[in-house]
Amino acid sequence: VAHAPEDEFAIIAAHFAPLAAPGGRGLLDDAALLQGGAFVITVDAIVEGVHFLPDDPIDSVAQKALRVNLSDLAAKGARPLHYLLTLQWPRTRPAAQIAEFAAGLARDQATFGVTLLGGDTTATPGPLAISVTMIGAAASRTPGRADAQAGDDLWVTGVIGDGVLGLEARRRGEWAGDVVGHYLRPLPRTEFASAIAQHAHAAMDVSDGLLGDAAKIAAASGVRLVLDPAALPLSANAAAWLAAQPDPHAARAHLANGGDDYEILFTASPAARTALVTAAATLGLRLTRIGFAEAGEGVEAGGLAAHGYRHRLGA
Amino acid sequence: VAHAPEDEFAIIAAHFAPLAAPGGRGLLDDAALLQGGAFVITVDAIVEGVHFLPDDPIDSVAQKALRVNLSDLAAKGARPLHYLLTLQWPRTRPAAQIAEFAAGLARDQATFGVTLLGGDTTATPGPLAISVTMIGAAASRTPGRADAQAGDDLWVTGVIGDGVLGLEARRRGEWAGDVVGHYLRPLPRTEFASAIAQHAHAAMDVSDGLLGDAAKIAAASGVRLVLDPAALPLSANAAAWLAAQPDPHAARAHLANGGDDYEILFTASPAARTALVTAAATLGLRLTRIGFAEAGEGVEAGGLAAHGYRHRLGA
Repeated sequence: VAHAPEDEFAIIAAHFAPLAAPGGRGLLDDAALLQGGAFVITVDAIVEGVHFLPDDPIDSVAQKALRVNLSDLAAKGARPLHYLLTLQWPRTRPAAQIAEFAAGLARDQATFGVTLLGGDTTATPGPLAISVTMIGAAASRTPGRADAQAGDDLWVTGVIGDGVLGLEARRRGEWAGDVVGHYLRPLPRTEFASAIAQHAHAAMDVSDGLLGDAAKIAAASGVRLVLDPAALPLSANAAAWLAAQPDPHAARAHLANGGDDYEILFTASPAARTALVTAAATLGLRLTRIGFAEAGEGVEAGGLAAHGYRHRLGA
Repeated sequence: VAHAPEDEFAIIAAHFAPLAAPGGRGLLDDAALLQGGAFVITVDAIVEGVHFLPDDPIDSVAQKALRVNLSDLAAKGARPLHYLLTLQWPRTRPAAQIAEFAAGLARDQATFGVTLLGGDTTATPGPLAISVTMIGAAASRTPGRADAQAGDDLWVTGVIGDGVLGLEARRRGEWAGDVVGHYLRPLPRTEFASAIAQHAHAAMDVSDGLLGDAAKIAAASGVRLVLDPAALPLSANAAAWLAAQPDPHAARAHLANGGDDYEILFTASPAARTALVTAAATLGLRLTRIGFAEAGEGVEAGGLAAHGYRHRLGA
């Protein structure tokens, strides 16, 4: 939700990438392979005032901390198993909220079939911050960012843009509605992970804006991704919002650069189309072919420019 | 370094323990077993103003973040392999310090043979905070807190009290000296892990004060631990400090309750004495038999009372 200077992240990447294990994929993927690939492991932290608002419901904050990591595993085709949690709890936040926080974790443990393996809690003078390390069982193949091939189709699950519209609605003080729900409790595509493992070439979760994340796949794979902006899957709410904007091009770019989508962006051979559409239909999951990969570099999206969020380094 | 209200941690334990996986040992150990025990995994965060001082050298902060976790693995007899890192970097802290932070990580990667598997970096409005998840290869046995038996000897590696004396020296603005060095860069007993795996019954690392940590072993194992306060291993600096205090009993209790020791406290059969002493001597490691376990409960230490630090929940 906050923008960090690009150069800061360039500095970090320059200094941390040389520290990476082989399984760490140079810290340039969303998850790492542990011990020859049996486990996939990922870590993401969320910080009050950066990734969520101070008055977001505390149970949804717990769920978001899990779900951003579940989303990373789903995009790697992995089945989530366990997580570890570090919790920095502000001295000024009521301790009674801890029960609600734990209740949010418990609900998602039941929904996604994961259990808590370890944790560490600290009282902090700063903002609430939650770091989750999530471990999954790897599929027979773990798609990386670098695996797109020229000629691949480009696909995305679900809808794009509800996350940023939900954040903006929350900032205006709204509590209800589908886009607020999407922002508060993004839905990781765990159930689609096995289709990803079977059919995807490159895959990553869309957390920092569709266009910016597409650019990461293009750069890692050495291909050019061509997106049809008119094909962007929008919810009814997002379509209505778009129709009401004075500058439709800028509005569409806003949705395509908003964060917090937590959908899976992936490429696959055109030969996999029927299998993918069938797998998604079986799950009742929206799945949209939004473009293709070709020889070249960068992302072409009908003139929409990428300016994604940059919270994150590496896995 | 900060004290949190006991009841807060009781609340957390009450709400989080029910979420634990079987390998999580009810969150009541220092590390968890992953997938039937091939891997040992632990997580600990350190926060500016809580676990380290804002002007501690930034490379030492990076090293401490790794070493508190390396210490947990050593106490479980495990060989460290990889770690994942979440870094919350204050917007007000110079980005140039990131290179020094990474250099601290790089030095400890070389020293301890670990590599970075993944990470996540966020700019934060709050204090610098580092969460490290460390993964190790389990030995054939992983000693828990609950494995002490009546009749066991009680041992501790290294010295006790330099950590708290070092913190106090740093708070007075001192930068040099052995106790400051111990506080800034505690030395995890990684090289003693295989002896722990072979011979220890119960084991844990001493991070929150010797007496409080001993009480955790006593409670988990259902035994009484009897410590000889005169047997506490002290550095020359700590012995000199102790000799200068007006109340030797209170002073000894201060050392026995200070945090940041990062030594291994363990119990073992008296039959293992020769093997343990030999293993330690081979490594040039100080090892002291400080007491024994008997039927009963709690910790008896010649009248020294436990009032350990309570940063931490579970693993």
